[in-house]
Amino acid sequence: MLEPRLITMSDPLSELLRVAQGKVNLGAIDPAGTPGFEGKKAEGLTALAEIGPSLAELQERLFAGAYTEESNARILVILQGMDTSGKGGVLKHVIGLLHPNAIALTSFKKPTAEELRHDFLWRIDKALPRPGIVGVFDRSHYEDVLVARVHELADRAEIERRYDAINQWEQALVDDGCVVIKCMLHMSEAEQRERLLARLEDPTKQWKFKPNDVDERQLWSAYQSAYEIALERCNTQAVPWHVVPSDRKWYRNWAIGRLVLEALESLDLQWPAPDYDVAAQKQRLLGQA
Amino acid sequence: MLEPRLITMSDPLSELLRVAQGKVNLGAIDPAGTPGFEGKKAEGLTALAEIGPSLAELQERLFAGAYTEESNARILVILQGMDTSGKGGVLKHVIGLLHPNAIALTSFKKPTAEELRHDFLWRIDKALPRPGIVGVFDRSHYEDVLVARVHELADRAEIERRYDAINQWEQALVDDGCVVIKCMLHMSEAEQRERLLARLEDPTKQWKFKPNDVDERQLWSAYQSAYEIALERCNTQAVPWHVVPSDRKWYRNWAIGRLVLEALESLDLQWPAPDYDVAAQKQRLLGQA
Repeated sequence: MLEPRLITMSDPLSELLRVAQGKVNLGAIDPAGTPGFEGKKAEGLTALAEIGPSLAELQERLFAGAYTEESNARILVILQGMDTSGKGGVLKHVIGLLHPNAIALTSFKKPTAEELRHDFLWRIDKALPRPGIVGVFDRSHYEDVLVARVHELADRAEIERRYDAINQWEQALVDDGCVVIKCMLHMSEAEQRERLLARLEDPTKQWKFKPNDVDERQLWSAYQSAYEIALERCNTQAVPWHVVPSDRKWYRNWAIGRLVLEALESLDLQWPAPDYDVAAQKQRLLGQA
Repeated sequence: MLEPRLITMSDPLSELLRVAQGKVNLGAIDPAGTPGFEGKKAEGLTALAEIGPSLAELQERLFAGAYTEESNARILVILQGMDTSGKGGVLKHVIGLLHPNAIALTSFKKPTAEELRHDFLWRIDKALPRPGIVGVFDRSHYEDVLVARVHELADRAEIERRYDAINQWEQALVDDGCVVIKCMLHMSEAEQRERLLARLEDPTKQWKFKPNDVDERQLWSAYQSAYEIALERCNTQAVPWHVVPSDRKWYRNWAIGRLVLEALESLDLQWPAPDYDVAAQKQRLLGQA
């Protein structure tokens, strides 16, 4: 284990990873890069562990604010990425640093028959975090412009409508006190093959593999295009997209931990002041048998 | 930090902490005891950290079984105890060792107007963990025979009816594949005073304190009696009660971690066998560009 190096960042990571306005070219972004981080794996693991206590404390302040002062503030982390890009790993290693009773995770699967009878945002609305909570979406409404576009599950006019609908919906969420962090876990096709092979070779991971995963790889470029369009069309001022290079798991985890930390810091969260007389309550307690 | 001592347990902890059939006398159980554990705080913290990986692996097997083989198995941990007895601490330090995407926590507050219009088990039913998930109730349906009894929120005949209703409901849950672990966090009145004073003295904890907490302490013996009756009436073969001495936080956390581990072990969980041809899938992957 190397000596942890002091990480000083001139710019917030959210600025560094933020997608520039206009056309998006994922091919120009190195999935094995480590923007904003000088150091290797050992230092990355240390750096993530080091922000754990700050994450947990700020999260508790967020929770306390909603509990006692009816603050509406909350956070929503949206994780999108190809199979094996590490959405589950982020849940375990990053979200696992937070208090489990103040997080709300939702994994969006193939929509049910009931969900399909409603607008695509219906099931998403129901999963929104309450005030004080850090919500995490493992996949999201973006599936409705990604897999839906690649597999033509909706006609082109409907897909077009959805980009605008998403932008309006996300703006309303921000206006309502929610900080939204959108992360695209950017992984190379070769790295995905390594990870799928690793699943096949490990009896404790074989259950995660589906033969359909190999079929979906045939559509790799169609998916990358669908991502590029979604990242361009839904890259708003209020809720920008971040591309998180994810070939290195340790960097991916550190970067997302850092994005969540920056979002919490942006809220300037304070411990709520007591709305009772502390000294008087102490006296009451000490006066009891 | 002391050298961790090898813990060999002759009996499962679930047997040791299990309430004996018949009348329950909480006064006879030492809230500062450490049954089944030889050692002090440093060793207790180490012992809990040591079972973390086993907890996480067995939990993943539980999840995998429901994911691929439609197993109905799941776990429900019910935490009951007086204010400050450490339900939140257990969530953080014990449940925090598990994969956050395969747990489901519910904190039961004062029932809403809508909940009060239904039977007391209505809101509980809605919070049950799905197959493969470890559910945790922070307070539960037992509040409906605890606070409801102490504050006479329901008439005596209704309270009587509820003990039987709970037993039937829990039996049905077990028949449906759920392992239920009921823990009463047993703390002394003096320890509660210390913890409330500590909350008053720490600006990062003052938000957790409510003047009503001091009022409720006047009813300490009424609550203890209500617990004794609930523990006696709902101590069934299928779902026994455990009394977890909780004056020492490290023991409480280790003990509950251990109870969850024993429950997972009782399910004899195996990694699911793949329902596809591993070698053929490897070939397909390697054959891709």
